Amino acid sequence: VNEFALIERFFRRAPRDAAVRLGIGDDAAIVAPTPGFEIALSVDMLVEGRHFLAGTDPERLGHKALAVNLSDMAAMGATPRFALLAGALPASDDAWLDAFMRGFRALAERHGTELVGGDTTRGPRNLCVTIVGEVPAGAAITRGGARPGDDVYVSGSLGDAALALAALDGRTKLDRDALDAARERLERPLPRVELGMRLRGVATAAIDVSDGLVGDLGHVVERSGAGAALDVGALPTSSALAAKLDGNERALALQCALAGGDDYELCFCAPPDARATIARLASALVLPLTRIGAITAERALVVRDENGAPLRALPRAYDHFAP
Amino acid sequence: VNEFALIERFFRRAPRDAAVRLGIGDDAAIVAPTPGFEIALSVDMLVEGRHFLAGTDPERLGHKALAVNLSDMAAMGATPRFALLAGALPASDDAWLDAFMRGFRALAERHGTELVGGDTTRGPRNLCVTIVGEVPAGAAITRGGARPGDDVYVSGSLGDAALALAALDGRTKLDRDALDAARERLERPLPRVELGMRLRGVATAAIDVSDGLVGDLGHVVERSGAGAALDVGALPTSSALAAKLDGNERALALQCALAGGDDYELCFCAPPDARATIARLASALVLPLTRIGAITAERALVVRDENGAPLRALPRAYDHFAP
Repeated sequence: VNEFALIERFFRRAPRDAAVRLGIGDDAAIVAPTPGFEIALSVDMLVEGRHFLAGTDPERLGHKALAVNLSDMAAMGATPRFALLAGALPASDDAWLDAFMRGFRALAERHGTELVGGDTTRGPRNLCVTIVGEVPAGAAITRGGARPGDDVYVSGSLGDAALALAALDGRTKLDRDALDAARERLERPLPRVELGMRLRGVATAAIDVSDGLVGDLGHVVERSGAGAALDVGALPTSSALAAKLDGNERALALQCALAGGDDYELCFCAPPDARATIARLASALVLPLTRIGAITAERALVVRDENGAPLRALPRAYDHFAP
Repeated sequence: VNEFALIERFFRRAPRDAAVRLGIGDDAAIVAPTPGFEIALSVDMLVEGRHFLAGTDPERLGHKALAVNLSDMAAMGATPRFALLAGALPASDDAWLDAFMRGFRALAERHGTELVGGDTTRGPRNLCVTIVGEVPAGAAITRGGARPGDDVYVSGSLGDAALALAALDGRTKLDRDALDAARERLERPLPRVELGMRLRGVATAAIDVSDGLVGDLGHVVERSGAGAALDVGALPTSSALAAKLDGNERALALQCALAGGDDYELCFCAPPDARATIARLASALVLPLTRIGAITAERALVVRDENGAPLRALPRAYDHFAP
């Protein structure tokens, strides 16, 4: 199978979206933007041995490679429209590519996102997805709009992806059902795309929780010139993680909930008068949207325990260039 | 230096282009498209050991990583506007990144292209650039528009990048000046962006010569449902390559001119009544635009030697998945 045959077989499809004027197979794709909208652009690179293990199920990897990008669109309130996929593979492997693309495409179709371009080459396994979304002009939700007094929310639940990693690494134990559920969060994260779009005009700031709540909310407050106070007792967690938070694995559980990456939930801010709107949104999406604290004028990030006492040391966010 | 410091230090700059509503530093960049234009999207991945050697001058690599993408925009007749850069690096290396970004930025500025997003991680060295361009609605130059009777042109000269590689590999010899000139073509290709934009409404089809003339023109004729006849005697080459074409290294020289990749010239088609327009364009751009053959109705690619006899075997294009 040569490179061109690869493209024909795995990547090229008749475009479903009329906005795709020219899909895979030319020097570039051509797409028509929606009048009155701005374009959101983001790229993420996943490296074998760093973001995923050799031997990871390729279908799950295809899902995740797109999910992390869709999550960036969600965090901007943007509608994902088009994706480009560049990949280095150690060797031509039809079964692997077929499964990878099955995972990628299933998620793309769920969100109406069209694969319009790509590049394939040999090399150490590396997957790089670029996502192109749209948002009404001026309506993008940035990291910099939070104001003192705003509520801080998080969608879904936090820490399960990190909990799955801890269990897989032997740092903690989970029963079979809890491990399966946590592992699903780690390997098949569901980007909160619909939530992001519905938060346009409601949220003052948003970010996706990819590096851990403390680090990610830290970016929001830094950009917003503000601070935040969070309550550990308010953090939404799975029952498995909640049990550890209340037991003798509290340190690990706090690490998972406050600094665990890979959950791909949205953390967002909104003024108190939006509470009813946000409650209705949670019902409509059948997705918990939990108020976990507030934005403060003082430029510090404080996390309070169940008794209201601030935690001394905050778990650190993941840093790809840390030693 | 952590990942966030890296981004601040090497990647983030105040946007120069008013269309950049939000640059590096949020979950996605936000850009404003030009009304009446369509968006061109392309991605290229460069892998160490495959597309460039370990130890390649990082400034030249920064130039080339962007150049190959700008060349895709040129081939569509699109104006490059925005770029995203994702990179895996084996270790944090300030001097390397600084030089890489110097090369990248110098070329970006020359073409008014703004770096709006990126991702950095550790891993085997891999650079993935996504380019976003604009073209007036309906004006993109595709691979599929060539018609029998059209002239086939190529810009600049062909084969010097491959000649440099052959000399560096010890497969041929070049005097110092010729090697320097050829190596410049290999390591600092100049994408024909202005030419591509000026070919809107003139060229019926275009492609950039990245994998070799025969292979790349092959894509054009396949998409156009046509064929082509080319004349070796008409191919524009440097004097160093021309000397080999006329001498006892003819096979190597033919390989360079017909199948050498990495020249990043444009190959394009236009009806004969556009000859005067194209001649004026060549003068205006101070860039040779050489007629090298014609599109034929018969679906075959024929290359004729200086006596008009067809070459028996055509050199093959580069295939990243060939054994």
